[in-house]
Amino acid sequence: MQGKMMQMPLRIIDILQYASEVHPDGEVVSARVEGDIHRETYVQAFERSAQLAHGLKGLGIGDGDRVATLAWNGYRHFELYYAISGMGAVCHTINPRLSAEQMLYIIGHAEDQILFTDLTFVPILEALADQLPSGLKFVAMTDRAHMPESKLDLLCYEELLDGQPLRYDWPLIDENEASGLCYTSGTTGHPKGALYSHRSTVLHALMSAVSVPKSLNEGARILPVVPMFHVNSWGLPYSAPLTGASLIMPGPHLDGASLFDLMENELVTASWGVPTVWMGLRAEMAARDAVPASLTQLVVGGSAAAREMIEFFEGKGIDVCHAWGMTEMSPLGTQAQVSKSMQDLPKDVQIDYKSKQGRRVFGVDLKIVDEEGKRLPHDGEAVGELFVRGNAVVSGYFNNEEASAAAMDAEGWFGTGDVAHIDKQGFLSLQDRSKDLIKSGGEWISSIDLENIALGHPKVSNCAVIAIAHPKWEERPLLVVVPADPADPPVLSELHDMMLEHVARWQLPDDMVFAEALPLTATGKVSKLTLRKTYGDHVLPDAAG
Amino acid sequence: MQGKMMQMPLRIIDILQYASEVHPDGEVVSARVEGDIHRETYVQAFERSAQLAHGLKGLGIGDGDRVATLAWNGYRHFELYYAISGMGAVCHTINPRLSAEQMLYIIGHAEDQILFTDLTFVPILEALADQLPSGLKFVAMTDRAHMPESKLDLLCYEELLDGQPLRYDWPLIDENEASGLCYTSGTTGHPKGALYSHRSTVLHALMSAVSVPKSLNEGARILPVVPMFHVNSWGLPYSAPLTGASLIMPGPHLDGASLFDLMENELVTASWGVPTVWMGLRAEMAARDAVPASLTQLVVGGSAAAREMIEFFEGKGIDVCHAWGMTEMSPLGTQAQVSKSMQDLPKDVQIDYKSKQGRRVFGVDLKIVDEEGKRLPHDGEAVGELFVRGNAVVSGYFNNEEASAAAMDAEGWFGTGDVAHIDKQGFLSLQDRSKDLIKSGGEWISSIDLENIALGHPKVSNCAVIAIAHPKWEERPLLVVVPADPADPPVLSELHDMMLEHVARWQLPDDMVFAEALPLTATGKVSKLTLRKTYGDHVLPDAAG
Ligand SMILES: Nc1ncnc2c1ncn2[C@@H]1O[C@H](COP(=O)(O)OP(=O)(O)OP(=O)(O)O)[C@@H](O)[C@H]1O
Ligand SMILES: Nc1ncnc2c1ncn2[C@@H]1O[C@H](COP(=O)(O)OP(=O)(O)OP(=O)(O)O)[C@@H](O)[C@H]1O
Ligand SMILES: [Mg+2]
Ligand SMILES: [Mg+2]
Repeated sequence: MQGKMMQMPLRIIDILQYASEVHPDGEVVSARVEGDIHRETYVQAFERSAQLAHGLKGLGIGDGDRVATLAWNGYRHFELYYAISGMGAVCHTINPRLSAEQMLYIIGHAEDQILFTDLTFVPILEALADQLPSGLKFVAMTDRAHMPESKLDLLCYEELLDGQPLRYDWPLIDENEASGLCYTSGTTGHPKGALYSHRSTVLHALMSAVSVPKSLNEGARILPVVPMFHVNSWGLPYSAPLTGASLIMPGPHLDGASLFDLMENELVTASWGVPTVWMGLRAEMAARDAVPASLTQLVVGGSAAAREMIEFFEGKGIDVCHAWGMTEMSPLGTQAQVSKSMQDLPKDVQIDYKSKQGRRVFGVDLKIVDEEGKRLPHDGEAVGELFVRGNAVVSGYFNNEEASAAAMDAEGWFGTGDVAHIDKQGFLSLQDRSKDLIKSGGEWISSIDLENIALGHPKVSNCAVIAIAHPKWEERPLLVVVPADPADPPVLSELHDMMLEHVARWQLPDDMVFAEALPLTATGKVSKLTLRKTYGDHVLPDAAG
Repeated sequence: MQGKMMQMPLRIIDILQYASEVHPDGEVVSARVEGDIHRETYVQAFERSAQLAHGLKGLGIGDGDRVATLAWNGYRHFELYYAISGMGAVCHTINPRLSAEQMLYIIGHAEDQILFTDLTFVPILEALADQLPSGLKFVAMTDRAHMPESKLDLLCYEELLDGQPLRYDWPLIDENEASGLCYTSGTTGHPKGALYSHRSTVLHALMSAVSVPKSLNEGARILPVVPMFHVNSWGLPYSAPLTGASLIMPGPHLDGASLFDLMENELVTASWGVPTVWMGLRAEMAARDAVPASLTQLVVGGSAAAREMIEFFEGKGIDVCHAWGMTEMSPLGTQAQVSKSMQDLPKDVQIDYKSKQGRRVFGVDLKIVDEEGKRLPHDGEAVGELFVRGNAVVSGYFNNEEASAAAMDAEGWFGTGDVAHIDKQGFLSLQDRSKDLIKSGGEWISSIDLENIALGHPKVSNCAVIAIAHPKWEERPLLVVVPADPADPPVLSELHDMMLEHVARWQLPDDMVFAEALPLTATGKVSKLTLRKTYGDHVLPDAAG
């Protein structure tokens, strides 16, 4: 028997309309490419989104059409999110750090009609001009005064809005209509597209709000360092207005000093980003011997947060919320806040929990399975591949039957490619990505574990552990270290001693090499693929002997 | 174009499973009919719900069957909520304060298969025994030791659970399946049933969590005074576990002294209830000259909260959140918290806002219309009938074509029967129920306004304003007052003076009568219907002259 309740589609645009009515003072503050700080309230953002939707309609955009963006975190990007999905089209966010080849591939694969670009990226597009689809229109996200000379036929964002009505008759679309498209960074093969829906996006925003309330609440001021061109800035452009939090957009300025200043000037209460970004902020905090005054929470995900980094920020009175997720999950999967009852535990034990990837958020189911797909217990010991299920998880990839089929298991769960265990308290611990695990003599070694320990050494500024082929053991771990002071690098035996407190002797890295910096992927993570290419031929001491 | 995301049904049981995994220390604390305090964690509640579902299955309950409850707020009632809906059946909560005739009507109309009852209500059922459907089974919500002698064939709740497995294979039902049934109090004609679905219930819980985070957060301890037999205790049995808040269930003890003690002993942080209940708590606080130590928020709804009452609690450091809603809305419609930016306003102006019914919660749309159904502006002046729309709003009534048709307008909105204006800040101000409005010489007088002012007089303990027929003006207001001290009642001219500060002279009540107490409806509101019957023949001074 069906209930007798109304069926209203869950729509993205309703979030912004709600914010404009109920949180009218909430604002989007943006450090602009043009160099200054721009401010608008959610009321203005909603009106400008309506104007933009009229402009897009004028350019011929209709239901389901893909509109691409190549842009930093800023208010115009925010308006594009709402206008495009609100009118029934699909917002395709492009990662500007993709290779030219990848960028051309996804623009073609998505069949983008229009591409909105920040001034920063005009040169990238000019370089690709000949290879881009001929019908593609370009809009520069600026006003007339800042329009660049270009060989591209550039429309002007502000002119598109000028004189348009402040209201738009947002269609009552089906909640399962596509709203956004984001391609994975494509470390393996061609990038694959996650095609989000209105339903998945709105539910994800509600789930996030309920899961990370310390960041997301009325009057909070959130700085999303995580880019809007990657998994919708972890959904913050939706969850912040939903809860009445303001958004402080950093534009292109993601270094420690710029972030520190923006946090101070804009009374930022919470900020979300990947570990590399927090290493920059940390260095700045150390250099200034100061803490951004209003900051209460850092959310860190995308790669494992090192225990030592968590300890640093917690020591400064900032709550660190370690989180795990993926493009294919919109992205939130787990969060590692300790519950009230755990706050009586010794600080050390609390940090242990915070170093894990955490408990599932509402609406996400987790299972770990062995190689036959059989479920493993959540006992903190059994390690298996992690599968997920939920309304904000993809059921496959956009126009890619092959990748779709490979991603899903027989029960309809999505395979994350991560290898993990889950403890009795429900805390997930990622051991590695399945492709980064080191297989030594039939046993597995977790590169993440070794890295986390090495990062605790004062002479180690950054590091990575990768697998090197080995004649006897198949693979053995190599430690790549960026020394804090190249003139005074760490000694391997010292690192071994630290590691032996946590892992078995056979798991220790066989060798150490030094690097000036670690190569990063398009999403700001350490690229182990590049490292494996660079050091693949490295001869380990024992293997040589 | 459809998104490529998984479709997982929004299911009620997933809330409790989530709480049991992610908020395992959250608890349901219950003041029992048996006289003691009972405690269980969400882990135990989830396991016992599974046992109960097995028990229900054993009794033959299947998809869509209605299972009735006649019970106070307590852990067994909580388990019934989850077990019944989780297995695919419908939980029909019966208001024990309904008249015998109404109770028989709704049990028959709902076609209940089983009725679960607290010991308190066994005598009510015994008195109705001959008139109840012959196939109806009864379960007493207690253990073997407390089973009463009864002419009814009573099963024992704890025996139903005994020895059953702690896991249940909860079916992956359609999210639009019915999950709960609640009849309105039926002040006009037969009660009408709101038939909630899994989708509406889960979305309502998410919406509530996002809208009233001060009550609903991890580690909070909420005391729902509002009964589980009326609109699901305003959804708290769902929103509390969702957010990790504990539930402190008062059982039958709803007087000021019992509530105060329970709040103190159980470190209650928030409590939700109707104004009459808070008048009791207030008297107790005044008598003890004390404030429950951990209490930070009172949510008040169901009837208008008097300004003066709000001032009292705010003066004691307790945040008052005035809310408006209805059975047909699951029930949350608006909440009157002042946003961060309003906290700079003079306290007096803030209390003005808090005295209104507040801003819409996410997922609820409001419109006010004139008699032709034409939309009126939200300018704080135009008064019209209030219509609502949203996923947690009914699209009609259970098995009642006539009432369903009457309730909905041409655009598919639900007519609340309330008359209101909405200001530019989005704050709703209820003027009256359309049937309680006083029509004087073609103009309307709001009974709520006059009551609120009169309640501010120290000699007025409670009051109500009703319409009395008038030969010239059609209707004129009569003030019914319960004096604080019957030996020293207020004088009408003094009350008139207070009222004249806010309303026009022609709106003043023509006369005042005294009563020992005001009659209440089954949901604890002042029954104006009864008052109109009692005082209908009252002769107003002017009308007589
Ligand atoms: N807190 C974390 N700790 C460890 N690893 C994490 C964490 N958060 C995310 N990850 C890793 O990031 C992955 C998801 O990243 P994302 O979707 O941003 O792109 P990617 O997987 O790096 O790119 P691609 O799929 O194209 O290779 C997860 O599968 C996991 O391996
Ligand atoms: N904060 C409030 N201020 C004023 N009135 C309120 C408030 N909250 C609720 N109400 C009134 O209560 C009504 C909803 O009450 P509910 O659904 O609990 O039963 P009822 O309407 O009293 O009963 P019935 O529909 O059977 O007559 C609203 O329509 C409104 O008139
Ligand atoms: Mg990936
Ligand atoms: Mg009603």
